[in-house]
Amino acid sequence: MSSEVYVSKTCFSLEELATAVNGIVAGDGQLEITGFAPLETAGKGDISFLAKAGDVHRLKEFGGSAVIVPMSIEKAPVAVIRVDDPYLASAKIHGRLLEKPFVATGVHPQAWIGKETSLPEQISVAPFVSIGDRVTIGERVTLEAGVVLGDDVQIGDDTTIKANTTIAQGCKIGKRVTIFSGAVIGSDGYGYATDKQGFHTKRPQVGIVQIDDDVEIGANSCVDRAAYGVTHIKSGTKIDNLVQIAHNVVVGENSLIVSQVGIAGSVTLGRNVVLGGQAGVAGHITLGDTVMVAAQSGIHTNLDAGARVGGSPAIPMNIFARAAIQFGKLSEMGRDIRKLKKQMAKCEAVAEEQSGSAK
Amino acid sequence: MSSEVYVSKTCFSLEELATAVNGIVAGDGQLEITGFAPLETAGKGDISFLAKAGDVHRLKEFGGSAVIVPMSIEKAPVAVIRVDDPYLASAKIHGRLLEKPFVATGVHPQAWIGKETSLPEQISVAPFVSIGDRVTIGERVTLEAGVVLGDDVQIGDDTTIKANTTIAQGCKIGKRVTIFSGAVIGSDGYGYATDKQGFHTKRPQVGIVQIDDDVEIGANSCVDRAAYGVTHIKSGTKIDNLVQIAHNVVVGENSLIVSQVGIAGSVTLGRNVVLGGQAGVAGHITLGDTVMVAAQSGIHTNLDAGARVGGSPAIPMNIFARAAIQFGKLSEMGRDIRKLKKQMAKCEAVAEEQSGSAK
Amino acid sequence: MSSEVYVSKTCFSLEELATAVNGIVAGDGQLEITGFAPLETAGKGDISFLAKAGDVHRLKEFGGSAVIVPMSIEKAPVAVIRVDDPYLASAKIHGRLLEKPFVATGVHPQAWIGKETSLPEQISVAPFVSIGDRVTIGERVTLEAGVVLGDDVQIGDDTTIKANTTIAQGCKIGKRVTIFSGAVIGSDGYGYATDKQGFHTKRPQVGIVQIDDDVEIGANSCVDRAAYGVTHIKSGTKIDNLVQIAHNVVVGENSLIVSQVGIAGSVTLGRNVVLGGQAGVAGHITLGDTVMVAAQSGIHTNLDAGARVGGSPAIPMNIFARAAIQFGKLSEMGRDIRKLKKQMAKCEAVAEEQSGSAK
Repeated sequence: MSSEVYVSKTCFSLEELATAVNGIVAGDGQLEITGFAPLETAGKGDISFLAKAGDVHRLKEFGGSAVIVPMSIEKAPVAVIRVDDPYLASAKIHGRLLEKPFVATGVHPQAWIGKETSLPEQISVAPFVSIGDRVTIGERVTLEAGVVLGDDVQIGDDTTIKANTTIAQGCKIGKRVTIFSGAVIGSDGYGYATDKQGFHTKRPQVGIVQIDDDVEIGANSCVDRAAYGVTHIKSGTKIDNLVQIAHNVVVGENSLIVSQVGIAGSVTLGRNVVLGGQAGVAGHITLGDTVMVAAQSGIHTNLDAGARVGGSPAIPMNIFARAAIQFGKLSEMGRDIRKLKKQMAKCEAVAEEQSGSAK
Repeated sequence: MSSEVYVSKTCFSLEELATAVNGIVAGDGQLEITGFAPLETAGKGDISFLAKAGDVHRLKEFGGSAVIVPMSIEKAPVAVIRVDDPYLASAKIHGRLLEKPFVATGVHPQAWIGKETSLPEQISVAPFVSIGDRVTIGERVTLEAGVVLGDDVQIGDDTTIKANTTIAQGCKIGKRVTIFSGAVIGSDGYGYATDKQGFHTKRPQVGIVQIDDDVEIGANSCVDRAAYGVTHIKSGTKIDNLVQIAHNVVVGENSLIVSQVGIAGSVTLGRNVVLGGQAGVAGHITLGDTVMVAAQSGIHTNLDAGARVGGSPAIPMNIFARAAIQFGKLSEMGRDIRKLKKQMAKCEAVAEEQSGSAK
Repeated sequence: MSSEVYVSKTCFSLEELATAVNGIVAGDGQLEITGFAPLETAGKGDISFLAKAGDVHRLKEFGGSAVIVPMSIEKAPVAVIRVDDPYLASAKIHGRLLEKPFVATGVHPQAWIGKETSLPEQISVAPFVSIGDRVTIGERVTLEAGVVLGDDVQIGDDTTIKANTTIAQGCKIGKRVTIFSGAVIGSDGYGYATDKQGFHTKRPQVGIVQIDDDVEIGANSCVDRAAYGVTHIKSGTKIDNLVQIAHNVVVGENSLIVSQVGIAGSVTLGRNVVLGGQAGVAGHITLGDTVMVAAQSGIHTNLDAGARVGGSPAIPMNIFARAAIQFGKLSEMGRDIRKLKKQMAKCEAVAEEQSGSAK
């Protein structure tokens, strides 16, 4: 596809790729694989993937070199790698094909480096990057144009900070982290005390943000510094664009926080929590491990591990789904109730009468 | 009004302006018009507009030179341009009065230009703009301070990129496009594959964003690059601030996407779709031409052309409006039902008894 | 706490601090206080606060020097400042302890200053700041790296603009304002006129944004310039991250606008309005003083001063709270109604029959 801007420079044998994902080759293991493409557009050298065994007929017109398929497919008209989870294996193989050694471009002369900041040998700092004082940066870090790092920031090895991102003073970023453009890490938390006249006094926000290894933070997302202590995004968590994470929030390992979610102050999320797009979480509550929250929901209470909820305020997902269907019938329900009330009044009148006449 | 920062430098006759909007002059066609202002604040040389014929009395105290009015107004106490749509005509005339020839300021010495990037003669590149390698830029393009263009970006003629905007590698921007400050075009789509232990592997995002002619993208909005292929914003579409458009979304021509809308991956919108503020659209669905979605709605299913919907999950707008009114009566309805159940139990008991006594 | 990045350099006697908050010292008024910390982590020299008198037992294990307590606590095992509102007093005392004299770093050689822009002596302008022509900046202003100020911008004394923020041409910012990173002040309002073919013509947006004294604007928030006149944020208002404020909105004094709120065009808010997170306000309406809006609500009508509302569309908060509880029972209610209708049909049939047999 001509629009692809990344071009794979590497070449693997089918066998090598299969080994990397615990897969089984059916066909020529020595086939050379140089790229990854969707089934419809794959050409010579490309590997694709088929998510569902039922779609095996789609392989007949395949123009690429090999396909990653579910383990249940034993025979195919093309060379295949059989795996338990083709979706996962394809992500790993595609990533492998795109891997490139880090090329350090050094520090651009139009970047600014503060005092007592020591940079490693292997680093790429673009123009108009501003690095504060006493900053610590790991090996093979990439800072794109317009990135601003405040004083005392720490950045781990192999981390990439995309263009125009701001990381404010004192924040700690782990290894293999990606922070996308326009994100703001370590802005002040939103905390004020209000007097009787209605004036707001700022509560100083003196904590930091700590982002652990292998986290991704989406474009224009905000993670506020703690009032005290740490706003903490734990390892492996992936945060989408335009997400708000308030002061003193803790997000557990490997959570997924979809675009435009807002998490209020001092919320604690367990590991592998999933928050659907535009969901909101009220302050000072705890969501247990693997909680799943539907898009646009509003969470106001603690949730036990494994809970599945939806709605605003949120209720168990199965109840929400049924109630949502019923919601569209509310007008009809109102009419039914009004009619029943009239009928009941008539019934009671008749009963009254009969009871009278019976005497 | 002293707060206006744009000052018109041009002068048109009333007749010239009328011709530009297919209007009919009533009054002196040679009147000189030099500016545009609201009815209340217009002064000598200013033209204003009156949206509704019923408001014609407001012209009595008008202090400006001329007014754009509905065609149905045949007589007025001031010079007028009669048009079918005063709101539209006033936008066109105001735009015309503000038009200025492009003044190329050239490339600022504190900007950075990458390799194999050829710039046109007519261009304005502000300080601290970073342009990658192999970038193509059209005539009369303005790049404000802090703009970052990645490698291989393409920008069409007469396009303006406002301060601190990021356009990542390979993205294609059309002609007469405006991208407002802080927008991020071409950040990675949010796509991961999760293994049995709950770890997420990134699915490489190797497509681009293509933005066609005459599009506007609001401040701090995000349009993510496609996983493969193209995230595509078609011509004439206007996107407000803080909007999220995920990977592989296609937005049809002349759509309006209001602030804080979120559109999940692989959604296809037809032309002239209107999404109200804070609405959300779930992934992999299609909304037909001219669909209108109320603010804060959540769309989870395909919608036919012309559909009008509201609510989360969304239902037809007329049903939503009635149900929403009923929602406030839910507590009352619950009480009514409980009472009816009691009455019914009593009724049945009486009936039972009577039926027994009747034997 | 080792993660704190601000270190207090100042030292006050307990008495001095008490005087600053109209408090009463119980204990040694000459105690030297050098820092502020939570109860659990306070050490020598630190002052803490106790919000509720009922928690007085928590003071037994206190390791700091003094505590701010409610006036009702007359005796305590440590030195205390007794005040009416410990939460407020602690904010003031913490702020006092962190106060530092402004240190002007001057204009960095890698900043860009436009024409006819005169800067005060006491100013800190970081690298890669771009300041337009005819800009006016007050004393003791801090412009962090990557800030862009358009032409004719005015900034009052003691204001701080954080990294990568954009303030577009002509906007006026008051004194002691803080605008956090990535915010965009003065982007164009979202206004178009649509013709019969569905093409949109931009309505020029020629007004400004005016932000009064003591306002805070959160990271990546957007305040659009007026179509005409002024989008106005009045003094003392605090706006959280990722908030959208459209053209011609007026926000009254000391309002609180929580993260991800969206306010559509020409809305007027009174003073001390509170909008909960992710709430939306439709265009051209007025909310009176001290209105409170629950998170995720949608406001479509004017609200009188003092109103408390929730829901989308919003209704009085107490009605919303009851209706929301009932919502989860909707499926059950539907079942009850269906059953009641059957029972009623039977009842009526029986009544009919009896009435027939009675004849």
